[in-house]
Amino acid sequence: MAPELLSGHACFGGVQGFYKHDSQEIGLPMRFSVFTPPQAKQGPVPVLFYLAGLTCTEETFMIKGGAQRVAAELGIMLVTPDTSPRGANIPGESDSWDFGAGAGFYLDATQAPWSKHYRMESYVVQELRALIVKEFAADAARIGVFGHSMGGHGALTLALRHPAVYRSVSAFAPIAAPSQCPWGEKAFGNYLGGDRAGWLEHDASALMRKTATPFPQGILIDQGLADKFLAEQLLPQEFEAACAEAKQPLELRRHDDYDHGYYFISTFMEDHLRFHHRILSA
Amino acid sequence: MAPELLSGHACFGGVQGFYKHDSQEIGLPMRFSVFTPPQAKQGPVPVLFYLAGLTCTEETFMIKGGAQRVAAELGIMLVTPDTSPRGANIPGESDSWDFGAGAGFYLDATQAPWSKHYRMESYVVQELRALIVKEFAADAARIGVFGHSMGGHGALTLALRHPAVYRSVSAFAPIAAPSQCPWGEKAFGNYLGGDRAGWLEHDASALMRKTATPFPQGILIDQGLADKFLAEQLLPQEFEAACAEAKQPLELRRHDDYDHGYYFISTFMEDHLRFHHRILSA
Repeated sequence: MAPELLSGHACFGGVQGFYKHDSQEIGLPMRFSVFTPPQAKQGPVPVLFYLAGLTCTEETFMIKGGAQRVAAELGIMLVTPDTSPRGANIPGESDSWDFGAGAGFYLDATQAPWSKHYRMESYVVQELRALIVKEFAADAARIGVFGHSMGGHGALTLALRHPAVYRSVSAFAPIAAPSQCPWGEKAFGNYLGGDRAGWLEHDASALMRKTATPFPQGILIDQGLADKFLAEQLLPQEFEAACAEAKQPLELRRHDDYDHGYYFISTFMEDHLRFHHRILSA
Repeated sequence: MAPELLSGHACFGGVQGFYKHDSQEIGLPMRFSVFTPPQAKQGPVPVLFYLAGLTCTEETFMIKGGAQRVAAELGIMLVTPDTSPRGANIPGESDSWDFGAGAGFYLDATQAPWSKHYRMESYVVQELRALIVKEFAADAARIGVFGHSMGGHGALTLALRHPAVYRSVSAFAPIAAPSQCPWGEKAFGNYLGGDRAGWLEHDASALMRKTATPFPQGILIDQGLADKFLAEQLLPQEFEAACAEAKQPLELRRHDDYDHGYYFISTFMEDHLRFHHRILSA
């Protein structure tokens, strides 16, 4: 069934659209956003999925990221899902800002009561991707993924778990070793249960250690050094060490003064879009 | 008294700051935002005031406008006030979205109970300008103004009423002839009273007809043709006719497909910043 257009806005010669559809994977209505660049009128264009962070929605990146200008120049479609199921009505779902609604962590929960609806990995990687390729002028062979914070975790882990799907990957201030930080321990403990060995299948640093050079064209990560979550929650040095072990080229750029928010993200957005474009155009 | 910094964020090599101060003109605490470009470290830079539209705050433009990138390149300081007093506790102040709180219309009310606090013209033109010049690296001789919708009305009318203050002026989808549209009739009737002759002192089209070429370097206006407020509320053709009478150079660009929102504004933001920079650098 075709997604319902909630609103569409001309933007940099393309169209910024917000959509709703009935998701089979999630078992609930889901919202997502698509920026279609002007080049899509001539035929399928590369697609870049952006995964947002805790508390965000499918709107956040499109409003705050400042990505449409360069995406319109380069001819890249941008797609953002919501950050969790909405309206699952699970007790406690909205009690905390770092778990449950707005905090799906881009994985398929294995533990009741979460496992029924909280299937964000299958939703993003399979259902939403298929829908985008079917309903929009998207080139199924040229797909990249990036994201911020929880969504940076999502981008890195989904790319490492599905390297045949995603040809390029980058992140802003990702939760780089979630099995070792409080946000990850809370989410994984509830969604995946107490067996920490299973958590490693959704931990970017652990996944990287199991492979050899999964992305030979490199991974780009930007991290602000005034980010209040850096030391306790993000742990980019763990991912850096894992990339060194896996001989994975990584450009991890540390920026004085920048914090965790969208003023940081928008500053380096253009670099990420050009990074993906270079790989997806090759 | 120096304004209180509520939050500051590194952004495109400059700093995005949000502030609060006790306003003498308004008689209440007021919030405003400042983007300081990196060039301000070397000395005073030109300043561009952005006046936002109905329901907006001092945050809206800084979050959605996408202006900081080009402002950082050109060395322009950006300043945005809130769109009205807050907390005046006037009965009915928050009953409608197009009048009262969030809808100060950038004028000094003459009618009770509004006249005590609703003094946005004196606040923006005198108090906030003086504060910015005193507390920030702002060049008092190079000040421009632009805005959107109600703030486009504000930019045009304040520039026409204070041409010695503002050297450059532009607007996105301004309320161009407020004495002839429902938004303006409601606001002016309540803030200024029933004497329609007095309204013309705050109507950009009427003000333009009283002068000759107030801005010889031109005025830039962008207007989307899919803007749902165009025909009833905005009336750019009235301002266009007034500029022709006043021999005022005007570039009024009409854009197919674009609506009234920030996806429209951000698309043409760069053009406005370069327009102001050219005039303020001359």
